[in-house]
Amino acid sequence: MQKTSLITSLYQTGCIQLGEFLLKNGSTSSVYINLRKIISYPDVLRAVASAMWEKMHGQPFELLCGVPYTALPIATCFSLQQNIPMIMRRKEKKEYGMKQSIEGEFEAGQICLVIEDIITSGSSILETARDLQQAGLQIHDVIALIDRQEGGKQNLSQHFRTHTLLTLTEILQTLLTSHLLDTKEQKLIETFLAEKVAV
Amino acid sequence: MQKTSLITSLYQTGCIQLGEFLLKNGSTSSVYINLRKIISYPDVLRAVASAMWEKMHGQPFELLCGVPYTALPIATCFSLQQNIPMIMRRKEKKEYGMKQSIEGEFEAGQICLVIEDIITSGSSILETARDLQQAGLQIHDVIALIDRQEGGKQNLSQHFRTHTLLTLTEILQTLLTSHLLDTKEQKLIETFLAEKVAV
Repeated sequence: MQKTSLITSLYQTGCIQLGEFLLKNGSTSSVYINLRKIISYPDVLRAVASAMWEKMHGQPFELLCGVPYTALPIATCFSLQQNIPMIMRRKEKKEYGMKQSIEGEFEAGQICLVIEDIITSGSSILETARDLQQAGLQIHDVIALIDRQEGGKQNLSQHFRTHTLLTLTEILQTLLTSHLLDTKEQKLIETFLAEKVAV
Repeated sequence: MQKTSLITSLYQTGCIQLGEFLLKNGSTSSVYINLRKIISYPDVLRAVASAMWEKMHGQPFELLCGVPYTALPIATCFSLQQNIPMIMRRKEKKEYGMKQSIEGEFEAGQICLVIEDIITSGSSILETARDLQQAGLQIHDVIALIDRQEGGKQNLSQHFRTHTLLTLTEILQTLLTSHLLDTKEQKLIETFLAEKVAV
């Protein structure tokens, strides 16, 4: 799928929203990215996983691990499309049965691709990768659908080859020229991009 | 996929194990079912989702919801195979952004199929279904891969049409005649089945 049609789909399905949104850190943003909605659109989920495969094709990896929770359906789709085994990191360990914080079959030394929906600070990926490495796995590559361009990709690049399909700027610039937005939304993006450059 | 080959796959992939296992309630069991391992075998995941579809085909539903967490990859696979939108129930609400305990697009009145890996008491399904119903969704059917035959299916059947693909007895009897087991495993199953009947 072309970048433009992927961006259009993400906007039309409400995975990318423009307005006024309260962020985790208390500040507000005119762009809200909620990739959890992707589970309502199997065709978009498939397109994202295929685009990730195209980007990663040729890189060596034997396993996949999605960062909990939003990236799990993306990783599952990637695994099903390419017949590559998946593992999952559990955030909390079980209190009964066989205790382990990584679910699924693996052997120490195997190479695992880490899959994420969006990179902001990169901390969720680092946390997942650290657990996988502690279990003896090798992490050479991580891939995310969106780079929010807040420094996370640079942080991660010190540790792994860090691949992303779309940047926030690219998404907003594409939407600006798409004729999908109303005047208010266009203005929000223009202000957002101008402030981004100013920083 | 035939029941026998599905059971064989579940045993060979270690999703069904025989031995001595500590259960949640402190007692021990000679059968341990860990369907989390299914994520390592995309072909088995696909076979389970296809078998569920065959069983459910013709029933009316517009949405799917997997019970967290083990059934989520099964529900994702079902959604991708049949192009049916999925929703997800979050166990904890987010503290920021748009608060909601059900992720994905839905409208009140829509019919949602609930998907589970294994029914023991049925309480996880009831909890998920209650949340979905509170959000205005209709639950007519639930489907699980395995009925552990501990009364859960009867409990659930008071509320929904409750479908299961395999019973524990069926699994164990199939394994007994499969020539896959060593003598110790055969003995474990025979004792398990005899005690089950005695109860």
